Amino acid sequence: MSAALRKLLDAKPDSLRARGLNRFAPYLMNRIIGRYNRTLRAELAQLGLTTPKMRALAVLSVRDGIMINELCVYAVAEQSTMSRTLDRMEETGLIERRPDARDSRARLIHLTDDGRALFDTLWPSLSAADARLFEGVGPEDQDRFLAILDRMLRNIRAHEI
Amino acid sequence: MSAALRKLLDAKPDSLRARGLNRFAPYLMNRIIGRYNRTLRAELAQLGLTTPKMRALAVLSVRDGIMINELCVYAVAEQSTMSRTLDRMEETGLIERRPDARDSRARLIHLTDDGRALFDTLWPSLSAADARLFEGVGPEDQDRFLAILDRMLRNIRAHEI
Repeated sequence: MSAALRKLLDAKPDSLRARGLNRFAPYLMNRIIGRYNRTLRAELAQLGLTTPKMRALAVLSVRDGIMINELCVYAVAEQSTMSRTLDRMEETGLIERRPDARDSRARLIHLTDDGRALFDTLWPSLSAADARLFEGVGPEDQDRFLAILDRMLRNIRAHEI
Repeated sequence: MSAALRKLLDAKPDSLRARGLNRFAPYLMNRIIGRYNRTLRAELAQLGLTTPKMRALAVLSVRDGIMINELCVYAVAEQSTMSRTLDRMEETGLIERRPDARDSRARLIHLTDDGRALFDTLWPSLSAADARLFEGVGPEDQDRFLAILDRMLRNIRAHEI
């Protein structure tokens, strides 16, 4: 696009109507994530799992031994919900809470071998759902898309993780 | 990236741990949209508004005169929630429900002048929140990002809109 045309477009009075819903990222992202989460929730329910449980398994598979508040940030979960979820996961042997070696009052959450094995069985369908999102998008565009998402998260996040 | 390197990477056993959370789009999108929606909800609450109400105003400002089920798809809202929201918006003169000229049993939802004026006052802060997401991302990358989101929505959506 020429600089002159860009300037002309930039000068147009901005409104959602002039822009169009499909040119407004928060709209598109809410539609996509709303559908993605709903489909996944139904699939998980068939396996007797919930979204917070799946997310706890996913995050701990990458960042084992973190505090509940960190887990809640990564998992986009309320602490009350996550606390109940972890109680059930501890009862069924999927996670363990162990004292922090650096601070005995704090407890860190660890995935057990059973928890890791359960997430390994879930990962192929999560990976397939991700691949379905990207159908028709080439590898370079996928890389650029992920880099922009990463930048967006740094632009907007309230926590340092 | 060379084809040989890409092939090598593709051959690596796939796991979320090997990939990293920040290379998994559904994780990043949930983090970003979770934070975006939470911040916006707090801002709207200060104005006495709710997310479904703002979304109804936004969608109707672009697609006036649609059915409630279409509005729910665009607004990513449950029909029961949206129905109650529209009742209150009708009482306060922000929308009107009018018979469909093509089917007198169906009712279409229209934004009133007051509703349009209210959305006009909200749009600058929505637009600013969108711009904040894209800070540091150039115009061409923004265009490419939106095109990929648009493709993703077509890949995943359950409705034809």
